[in-house]
Amino acid sequence: MRILVLGGDGYLGWATSMYFSRRGHDVHAVDNYLRRRSHTEAGTDSLTPILDSLPARAQAWREVTGLSIGVTEGDLLDWEIVERVFREFRPEAIVHYGEMPSAPYSMIDREHAVFTQHNNVIGTLNVLFAMADLTPEAHLVKLGTMGEYGTPNIDIEEGFITINHNGRSDTLPYPKMPGSLYHLTKVHDSHNIHFACRVWGLRSTDLNQGVVYGIETEETRLDPRLATRFDYDEVFGTALNRFCLQAVIGHPLTVYGRGGQTRGYLNILDTLRCVELSCLNPPAAGEYRVFNQFTEQFSVLELAHKVFEAGRDYGIHVELDHVDNPRVESEEHYYNAKHTKLLDLGLKPHLLSETLIESMFAEIERHKDRVILDHIMPRTKWRAPLHEGSPR
Amino acid sequence: MRILVLGGDGYLGWATSMYFSRRGHDVHAVDNYLRRRSHTEAGTDSLTPILDSLPARAQAWREVTGLSIGVTEGDLLDWEIVERVFREFRPEAIVHYGEMPSAPYSMIDREHAVFTQHNNVIGTLNVLFAMADLTPEAHLVKLGTMGEYGTPNIDIEEGFITINHNGRSDTLPYPKMPGSLYHLTKVHDSHNIHFACRVWGLRSTDLNQGVVYGIETEETRLDPRLATRFDYDEVFGTALNRFCLQAVIGHPLTVYGRGGQTRGYLNILDTLRCVELSCLNPPAAGEYRVFNQFTEQFSVLELAHKVFEAGRDYGIHVELDHVDNPRVESEEHYYNAKHTKLLDLGLKPHLLSETLIESMFAEIERHKDRVILDHIMPRTKWRAPLHEGSPR
Repeated sequence: MRILVLGGDGYLGWATSMYFSRRGHDVHAVDNYLRRRSHTEAGTDSLTPILDSLPARAQAWREVTGLSIGVTEGDLLDWEIVERVFREFRPEAIVHYGEMPSAPYSMIDREHAVFTQHNNVIGTLNVLFAMADLTPEAHLVKLGTMGEYGTPNIDIEEGFITINHNGRSDTLPYPKMPGSLYHLTKVHDSHNIHFACRVWGLRSTDLNQGVVYGIETEETRLDPRLATRFDYDEVFGTALNRFCLQAVIGHPLTVYGRGGQTRGYLNILDTLRCVELSCLNPPAAGEYRVFNQFTEQFSVLELAHKVFEAGRDYGIHVELDHVDNPRVESEEHYYNAKHTKLLDLGLKPHLLSETLIESMFAEIERHKDRVILDHIMPRTKWRAPLHEGSPR
Repeated sequence: MRILVLGGDGYLGWATSMYFSRRGHDVHAVDNYLRRRSHTEAGTDSLTPILDSLPARAQAWREVTGLSIGVTEGDLLDWEIVERVFREFRPEAIVHYGEMPSAPYSMIDREHAVFTQHNNVIGTLNVLFAMADLTPEAHLVKLGTMGEYGTPNIDIEEGFITINHNGRSDTLPYPKMPGSLYHLTKVHDSHNIHFACRVWGLRSTDLNQGVVYGIETEETRLDPRLATRFDYDEVFGTALNRFCLQAVIGHPLTVYGRGGQTRGYLNILDTLRCVELSCLNPPAAGEYRVFNQFTEQFSVLELAHKVFEAGRDYGIHVELDHVDNPRVESEEHYYNAKHTKLLDLGLKPHLLSETLIESMFAEIERHKDRVILDHIMPRTKWRAPLHEGSPR
């Protein structure tokens, strides 16, 4: 299958590109190095050393495996690039990670908010037009986020919910209450993509993904040059990955507030398998479907305790620190999100284990000297735009 | 009250500016002339002759009434302008019409789609940041559209719906299934504004407005120089206004498809009153509320018949033409939209009457020589981006 990976230089994008290439697919990766530039701007970096560019990574991949991954260094906001890639590569599936993925980044200030919403919404709109114009049969596998739903007081369904109301019934898009200007872009994308399916007859799978953890995949293990990036800073790092790093360097785990915030989580190996299952089982023309892509729910405090326990057995002392929550979010709430559709397609989850956490400790230790200490604590506050003392 | 009218040069924006000015409020109008430029581009124009610029209109207003309307010629995408207007005028209410408001425009091609989504979403985001930074107590009265809801098979509530699901219950944003890339921008805005209220403590009323009809208001009648614009072309014209014009010039009424599409409608006089009621009864800090702003539901065919009958009594022969529907929409569907919240605040609707239609005929006849004939039939097709014969 010809698979286009948008955002192919990222944590998941590079891992996905290698995964599909190794399984016999024809892979083309596109990236504009937005993540690398944001890190340079902020003075942060990936824990794992990664090669300098996408062509260098593809070259290493060729040397190690004999397989080719096509690459385009370019921006989805640039229609000429998007149009050319679709015209020349003619993808059958488009795996779309090509967005600014950070909630704190989108909340830094107006400029970052505007950039995030513009970048994500317009980039995806360009992809939809390219599909409609050039590859109307292709399947868009779009990475969304479980954060689109927020924390409603009812069960979270997979994208749609049947509502009985005043004696009538309809199945409608699940209501969304996202928690940041970044998460909002995923909601906007979902609405735009749903429209493109309904009205233009495109087909798409929207993967509302939980928080991904893990450093290694079968492919990254083949050679150190094939490492994927690993972020732990306050802007691009995510809960479990950051906790593991904090544990290794002796930094207290930064639990935001009381830590009751419950979210869905999954291993990076399951991300790859979920994306594969989606590609191998495309929806019908005109169909827009949503899968909730995670395997287990944890509260932040539960995660911290798991890291604490794994640390004890591994021989490192782990401290917990309840820091002021920089976000505006409920710290105690109902949370029960359905996630059966990918299991039905054949997903066999890699559940979170102490062994996995310990293997992350070991991998992090190997790169310990690369840790940049001064971007671990949260600085970006959700309430910043309002004057002090103004009413809520 | 200091009222900022964004899009103050438009059909509703100019009428609103005069309405509030005449009632003793301090009004400042902002417009970038997007509508005028789009008309110039397309070779179309307002039926009613309007003065050349917002300062010229404010000058005429001053001459006729002795009252001042402040003006800024500028773009909401330009943060320096937005920031300066908020800093200098310090609005207590912001009535936000300042968007590209045309569904067909957004569907012309990729460039128009991208422009529409960028313009509306980022312009509104700038307004939200200006409020948060400079006037956190102010009240955003945002013009949305009933088109955000689409045509679900259950009753349409006002912005939120209580869902009972698996033994639990929550009141959540009403699911949205809009019918064009323009309508999608209003959905995106609604999500962004809701977030700004929840997280930054702003206050907003989102007016999901039906299709507005009418040419005159108490203020436009004061002097011909105070006329508001009246659009009838395929891009900016709307159902009843266009039908009345078609009747007067002897053009068959362009009923799209079978004409069973039911929507909410209201008189321009009621728009003004609804916006006033919203401003005079602001929500609490942090509250985001939605009012469905229309007074009656009609199918397109019912509207056409009303115009036909009014024409018969007025002495003009009216023909109906079922043209191929350029849009992708249901032509037969359930539609029952609630609209009690503005009535509860005191709205006394001006219901659609034969007298009103006949007065529109008379007003249109006065400007009949200005009609540009070749932009009345629909050209913009919703399905254009897909290859012929591709599956839906």
